[in-house]
Amino acid sequence: MVINKENNKTIKLAVDTMGADKGTEVIIRGADILASKHIIKFIFVGDKNIIQPMLLKTNNIGNSEIIHTSDFVKSNEKGSEALRGGKSTSMWMSLNLVKEGKADAIVSAGNSGALLAMSYISLRPIKGVSRPAMIAYFPTKTGQTAMLDLGANIECNSKNLIDFAIMGSAFSRIILKINNPTVGLLNVGEENQKGNLILQEASSEISKQSSNVNYFGFVEGDDITEGKVDVIVTDGFSGNIALKTAEGTAKFVTHLLEESFKSSLLSKIGYLLARKSLINMRKKVDPRRYNGAVMLGLNGIVVKSHGSTDAKGFSNALLVAYEMVKGDFINDLKKKILNKI
Amino acid sequence: MVINKENNKTIKLAVDTMGADKGTEVIIRGADILASKHIIKFIFVGDKNIIQPMLLKTNNIGNSEIIHTSDFVKSNEKGSEALRGGKSTSMWMSLNLVKEGKADAIVSAGNSGALLAMSYISLRPIKGVSRPAMIAYFPTKTGQTAMLDLGANIECNSKNLIDFAIMGSAFSRIILKINNPTVGLLNVGEENQKGNLILQEASSEISKQSSNVNYFGFVEGDDITEGKVDVIVTDGFSGNIALKTAEGTAKFVTHLLEESFKSSLLSKIGYLLARKSLINMRKKVDPRRYNGAVMLGLNGIVVKSHGSTDAKGFSNALLVAYEMVKGDFINDLKKKILNKI
Repeated sequence: MVINKENNKTIKLAVDTMGADKGTEVIIRGADILASKHIIKFIFVGDKNIIQPMLLKTNNIGNSEIIHTSDFVKSNEKGSEALRGGKSTSMWMSLNLVKEGKADAIVSAGNSGALLAMSYISLRPIKGVSRPAMIAYFPTKTGQTAMLDLGANIECNSKNLIDFAIMGSAFSRIILKINNPTVGLLNVGEENQKGNLILQEASSEISKQSSNVNYFGFVEGDDITEGKVDVIVTDGFSGNIALKTAEGTAKFVTHLLEESFKSSLLSKIGYLLARKSLINMRKKVDPRRYNGAVMLGLNGIVVKSHGSTDAKGFSNALLVAYEMVKGDFINDLKKKILNKI
Repeated sequence: MVINKENNKTIKLAVDTMGADKGTEVIIRGADILASKHIIKFIFVGDKNIIQPMLLKTNNIGNSEIIHTSDFVKSNEKGSEALRGGKSTSMWMSLNLVKEGKADAIVSAGNSGALLAMSYISLRPIKGVSRPAMIAYFPTKTGQTAMLDLGANIECNSKNLIDFAIMGSAFSRIILKINNPTVGLLNVGEENQKGNLILQEASSEISKQSSNVNYFGFVEGDDITEGKVDVIVTDGFSGNIALKTAEGTAKFVTHLLEESFKSSLLSKIGYLLARKSLINMRKKVDPRRYNGAVMLGLNGIVVKSHGSTDAKGFSNALLVAYEMVKGDFINDLKKKILNKI
């Protein structure tokens, strides 16, 4: 039986069942997939009239707990709006379960801005963390790389970037299973004098955190997919631009590839022959395998799933939450923040 | 005969023959390729003992002018170092030809930082342009998109971004042949309240420049390759990150593709059948076709070629310079800057 290292209890995940583009079924089926591999207790927050019949069709989670509410955060609501009137929403109530210790982590596929705002207010930052940050990981030439911040903080000072380096290292040890992850600071060149004063100060300070951070130095945009380091630290503006540019470029190249396979009879036959290998390649970079961004630095684990993912993708977001609880991320991070120089 | 609109003279390009990774031959052969299609006068600046024998082997440029120097900017020199001691370098002497009106534009494959610094000091910004910026263009789903700034200005205020919008529009009209190019401001979301105050102010101000700029609004990282707008405006930090991330991602996906074609006998045969179509696709996104970044906003046209390009790639950088002179870019931009609100 899989247990939480610290207190020997089954891991409990609070799941916001509302706000996913494809509805509640994706959420419930995703949980069922994960429960076939790990022992987990789910607390589903949402409309019991929708959830209950779905649970009856599952293999592993039929008797999960449901906390009923029919209110939810709409996809177009601003974070501030959601905060004001949202105390009876599935998102807020799910977060509350973590705050009250009734769940070990929360996973939601709902409105990102609202989840950022609500989780900040509900769970508050860990003492010593100057700013929480959003992290995710994706495939590279050599394996996987995590990057933060992906949009929670548009402007960052050097203190924020130091905290991101510490949090990103702790995340990668647990989720990417890398023992002493290397950390790079995103910049427009590798030389010391590159970038602005904030980056130069952050670089100098991070290099002093040697008990917490295996610092590589500055890295550039093309080093992200090159897999030059295990963790990329940047402000939320650049991180968001880099992530979306990479997603867009991957889509564009794939689109060109599809067009070229369709362009002649010979290339269509060629595609059929190479199909199996191409599908294997696609699996490697399947976005569902990398679904689950984490809001790091709060007193609780908050995982954000892509709103448009399917059951398999949602099960990965749940897995990220599960692994972080299992790896005792919060206590590990607290220790590291205390060790900060 | 192709003539400069304004003064009916043959277009003259000053060419820095030193500093390319693959040596002077790439430069000379690149010029020869372009001269087979257009009537251009080249002034080659560099070591005449190297250039002269190479010119004898060309088809179209055998009797070009050579200005001799054996001094050049090294690839690892900082811009400030190059400025101090570099008055006899091929780069500085090439720029001087433009400053003195002896050439219409300059093209160099040498040290980027030095070219930025030297061209700024030698040619000075056009009156009314708050900051010169580096622009380049690349393929998208729908055609081509230009982006600036790509690294000349790490931090920008709203005035700089407004000038970038005007300069980028003028560039796209001439180089991408788009009559009324749409301009987007790179941000982390499309809603008005997204990004920092500088971006919000710039967005509001650019929307007032309707005689100069066809403003679309905010765009995101994945809109770059989507081709949502014709010109993307951003600060030099984000622009550099986006450009390099896109290059890295395209390389990564291509790498995965090559690996998957090699992974089985069937997929190898499949590759052979689809080869022609795949090569056609590659041609569409061939970086050589997009070689030639331009430093916009100076009293003279300065084109930077990738240091590692080949003759075909260098000929495209020369073509960009040629087209900008032919389109009378400098005078067009001066008028637009006078019209700025």
